[in-house]
Amino acid sequence: MDKYPSKLLETAVNEFSKLPGIGRKSALRLVLHLLRQDSESVNFFGNSLIQLRNEIKHCKVCHNISDTEVCQICENPSRNHNVVCVVENIRDVMSVENTQHFNGLYHVLGGIISPMDGIGPSDIEIESLVHRIEKGEIIEVILALSTTMEGDTTNFYIYRKLKGLDVKITTLARGVSIGDELEYTDEITLGRSLDNRVPYESSIGK
Amino acid sequence: MDKYPSKLLETAVNEFSKLPGIGRKSALRLVLHLLRQDSESVNFFGNSLIQLRNEIKHCKVCHNISDTEVCQICENPSRNHNVVCVVENIRDVMSVENTQHFNGLYHVLGGIISPMDGIGPSDIEIESLVHRIEKGEIIEVILALSTTMEGDTTNFYIYRKLKGLDVKITTLARGVSIGDELEYTDEITLGRSLDNRVPYESSIGK
Repeated sequence: MDKYPSKLLETAVNEFSKLPGIGRKSALRLVLHLLRQDSESVNFFGNSLIQLRNEIKHCKVCHNISDTEVCQICENPSRNHNVVCVVENIRDVMSVENTQHFNGLYHVLGGIISPMDGIGPSDIEIESLVHRIEKGEIIEVILALSTTMEGDTTNFYIYRKLKGLDVKITTLARGVSIGDELEYTDEITLGRSLDNRVPYESSIGK
Repeated sequence: MDKYPSKLLETAVNEFSKLPGIGRKSALRLVLHLLRQDSESVNFFGNSLIQLRNEIKHCKVCHNISDTEVCQICENPSRNHNVVCVVENIRDVMSVENTQHFNGLYHVLGGIISPMDGIGPSDIEIESLVHRIEKGEIIEVILALSTTMEGDTTNFYIYRKLKGLDVKITTLARGVSIGDELEYTDEITLGRSLDNRVPYESSIGK
């Protein structure tokens, strides 16, 4: 255990090293960096975290994080309110937004069904998704979860919950990534790409 | 540029990504981690940084960081007040302390002479080192700077400043690291190790 020359320093290092992926050496480096900044910047940094934690809201429609009761995406009249993209978390919303290929709404599950981690269907926002769809405005649900066992399980659970309702259920196309060389593509992805091959014309957007 | 669903989130991510070695993706991951912690922990984290920056002191004797006017090392009567180890920064104090091979005092320069970065002798705590030694209590100064060009320059500058005073000036032994294989040792280190070879008996502590 390192000995720190100051209790204040030790406390700050302890706090930083609780963050994921930050060990005690990195934590010390970050804290010493902050010590070299002016007092105002450090106050702003500390307060921005406190304010974020205390004032952030979750959109009551899609559960994305938001500064307002209903988020900017759900409130935006120029977005397509008939299509909902179901994602695991906030970062996935940002990933999909960054593609600029989607103009519908989102539904953030806030997790994924994972019996190993003790996360069941009732721990994530599946019921509220069903309620949203029962209202009738949504005509397509896009399941955009990770291609992992947990993602597939969650997809299937949602599919079973929704299949009685009058809604189209789609999922992301799986296949060889753009720019990937075939010899380095894993065999499961390549196999699925073969099974789900598409007419050439559609691949070039015709 | 990523679009964030919330201004508060964006501000916190901006602040985190100002830290060295933390990009925007890592910053987002850290911020979302904090969002999942309870409010009290995040308040404590933020306040620990603010408090550190506003309340930390530098020891007026050795310039190490400290919670008090004079640090615990300088104030400790059981340490040897006749030997001073000169180091570049606070982390080096911790490194030397961790060896448990040193029981003297420190002098933290707060940097190293580096013309490339515009850091000259007057920008670091060399004058105050000379004043400490002029008081007469110190009989040995150990120069413990990095073995870089800047470290060597700083060593030599301090040596010239001190050589007229009645004080023994020593430096860390340079050589092959313990546990290193010869074939992977760089040639400069190996060359110096040969030049400065020591009687075998002294290497085994006789």
